[in-house]
Amino acid sequence: MTEFISAVDTFDVRFPTSRHRDGSDAMNPFPDYSAAYLVLRTTAGAAGHGLVFTVGRGTEVQVAAVRALAALVVGEPVEELVADPGALARRLVGDSQIRWLGPEKGVVHMAAGGIVNAVWDLAARRAGKPLWKLLADLTPEQLVAQVDFRYLRDALTEDEALTLLNAGVPGRAERERLLRAEGYPAYTTTPGWLGYDDEKLVRLCREAVDDGYDLIKLKVGGNLTDDVRRLELARQAVGPRVRLAVDANQIWGVPEAIGWMEQLRGFDPYWIEEPTSPDDVLGHAVVRRALAPIRVATGEHVHNAVMFKQLLQAGAVDVVQIDACRVGGVNENLAILLLAAKYGVPVCPHAGGVGLCELVQHLAMFDFVAVSGTLDDRAIEYVDHLHEHFVDPVRIQRGRYLAPTAPGMSGELIAESLAAYRFPDGPQWSAAAGGAVAAATAVG
Amino acid sequence: MTEFISAVDTFDVRFPTSRHRDGSDAMNPFPDYSAAYLVLRTTAGAAGHGLVFTVGRGTEVQVAAVRALAALVVGEPVEELVADPGALARRLVGDSQIRWLGPEKGVVHMAAGGIVNAVWDLAARRAGKPLWKLLADLTPEQLVAQVDFRYLRDALTEDEALTLLNAGVPGRAERERLLRAEGYPAYTTTPGWLGYDDEKLVRLCREAVDDGYDLIKLKVGGNLTDDVRRLELARQAVGPRVRLAVDANQIWGVPEAIGWMEQLRGFDPYWIEEPTSPDDVLGHAVVRRALAPIRVATGEHVHNAVMFKQLLQAGAVDVVQIDACRVGGVNENLAILLLAAKYGVPVCPHAGGVGLCELVQHLAMFDFVAVSGTLDDRAIEYVDHLHEHFVDPVRIQRGRYLAPTAPGMSGELIAESLAAYRFPDGPQWSAAAGGAVAAATAVG
Repeated sequence: MTEFISAVDTFDVRFPTSRHRDGSDAMNPFPDYSAAYLVLRTTAGAAGHGLVFTVGRGTEVQVAAVRALAALVVGEPVEELVADPGALARRLVGDSQIRWLGPEKGVVHMAAGGIVNAVWDLAARRAGKPLWKLLADLTPEQLVAQVDFRYLRDALTEDEALTLLNAGVPGRAERERLLRAEGYPAYTTTPGWLGYDDEKLVRLCREAVDDGYDLIKLKVGGNLTDDVRRLELARQAVGPRVRLAVDANQIWGVPEAIGWMEQLRGFDPYWIEEPTSPDDVLGHAVVRRALAPIRVATGEHVHNAVMFKQLLQAGAVDVVQIDACRVGGVNENLAILLLAAKYGVPVCPHAGGVGLCELVQHLAMFDFVAVSGTLDDRAIEYVDHLHEHFVDPVRIQRGRYLAPTAPGMSGELIAESLAAYRFPDGPQWSAAAGGAVAAATAVG
Repeated sequence: MTEFISAVDTFDVRFPTSRHRDGSDAMNPFPDYSAAYLVLRTTAGAAGHGLVFTVGRGTEVQVAAVRALAALVVGEPVEELVADPGALARRLVGDSQIRWLGPEKGVVHMAAGGIVNAVWDLAARRAGKPLWKLLADLTPEQLVAQVDFRYLRDALTEDEALTLLNAGVPGRAERERLLRAEGYPAYTTTPGWLGYDDEKLVRLCREAVDDGYDLIKLKVGGNLTDDVRRLELARQAVGPRVRLAVDANQIWGVPEAIGWMEQLRGFDPYWIEEPTSPDDVLGHAVVRRALAPIRVATGEHVHNAVMFKQLLQAGAVDVVQIDACRVGGVNENLAILLLAAKYGVPVCPHAGGVGLCELVQHLAMFDFVAVSGTLDDRAIEYVDHLHEHFVDPVRIQRGRYLAPTAPGMSGELIAESLAAYRFPDGPQWSAAAGGAVAAATAVG
């Protein structure tokens, strides 16, 4: 009997992370890591899991967007869907009425990405493979067919993508062996949240070095005097060889970014992340030229492949930070990986939040095996929050992500966590924690 | 007694325009012109009206976004709000949790714009002035204080904006007199929808010329043979002196845009609108260089001032098409008008849909009186649909918008229309028109 998608279940899940200022930065002083979580159900009783990461208020808008697009996948035959998620991705992004609300940006685009990722999760489960392996086993032709090149051909054609992927085929097996044996490099943001005091910063920096990390990221941009003191303390704590990246989370305009970073240059920052608006391609190019050799990194808020294309065309970034949930899912991230490979710019995925590490590790590992073919200057962000809520949490060893082995994309929440943190009716938000509800729903 | 905002009422309103393919283009074959409509209520019984234009499915997501931001305005003192809508605009755009869903793009940004516009509507009503006049009576200092320059200073500083506005002060009174006497130029898109047959195209083109229009816009990009035939017919119908602009609604990639338009060059197109993705600043610059002297126009989907800034910095556009509902409201459009004036690029607002003509005329007229100070190469789009649903509809005479005189921003819907077209429970969508509901909710 043919198997169909029978339903898309959606959930508003929020974790009260703002209580300890985990995740606090210059633009996000009190985030409650959250997700619009979704489960594709099939008539055969199978499921594909996806999520769109959010930071608290407004998650209900993201859930509404997932529901608006769910109508395009319910009733579809599963076999066809998993054989060509790219066809669904095009339909979700191209819906001629919903498209107006983006286009290809914001909540409707992230909703499309959540559904597309859930289809890939389902595909990988059916294949009995972790997603990175499912992708790495596709032929170059199959991979190219999964990408929408409509707005990309002035930077990357189908033929160029094919040539690039074909060049990597001979080394795939050896890189897969290496990946399984040694994992993929990680860097950590755990020590660097803006809301942590100096003692906690120093202690966590030392722990990170002891844990094997050689790249640590600190939030900056709140106050210059604080930034100087914190970077001094961190540099003392980690020594000269461990790299320190900094992240301004879009707090500055272009001239301000350059001026502020000139004051931090002495601490040898490895990269400056999100120096200004993620939309400002030309601004990033100006900042990069002014601050070299400090690298410029961005991507967690870069809303689609057209923007990444321009960041690369304009020579505006040294580090491409893909995010598993910001763009239209695995397919658009595949396009971005191909663009980055063509321009020779390393990809260091954004992660953290809730579920972002679990999801994005698959894309980075696939990139290593089948696209860029290298680990040089690459690392996946790691933050040690909220992994306990996942059925297949990331495994970190000596500063490296170990390759997932369970089938799927690793984004499935534990049922008990889903029940406990549902907003606003889960016990973590209702009577038992009334104060927290007030904090999460209060504005400002 | 101090007056406060007591509530934000929200409505999902949809008009079944797809039944006659009004509004049909290469990317939007069957739009149902719709709006997330909102009314700010005050404790004194006053009201400010705003709307976010949409095209059917997904309007409920836009409504959810307005509701998510409504909490930031309910309970605010009206006197302070109307004295400084810019402060509210910053808070709405900057909410540290909701911001994640954009930032500054998509449904959350349009929701902010809808609320900000409603506050300006309220401010203008209280002042007893049409919005264009309220704005044109503000001093240069007051106007500059209404703009968020955070991400714009590399292109336009507060001082530059002040200088620019001050230069226009001596001519304000004379331009206001001219505006009241002669109105503001319009161009028409009424004849050009892709779903209209040749006979209707020719008839409407002739009527447009008879009505006094000297600029008519046609949709293109569906099929090249059709485009050639339609442009030939239109050119014959209007003669050599009436300008014909064409609009591809983002259907092409960069090389395709150039190739296709080369085939239409012989019909002397005045501008090519939305040749490719609205996000592709660098792509528009390439298209513009290749197609000159054909002008390049875009803006109805350009999601914020940072993107307009770059379009101007990169020399990517000849025509800036602001939209009253796409960005964060009057304040962000003020920033865009200032940027366009600094770069000397004419503004020809996008309109049509439902309510867009009513709203955006105020911005264009204010621009003439107090910012650019000129009507050269400028015209507001006009489409003759759905104006009958507004309390203060636009008035067009001999191809010109007459200056509104009623207090406010002209976006208030007639109560009967609001009741009739509410989705899905209004009589136009419920039992009496069951087939139309199916059409609007079906996907694809």
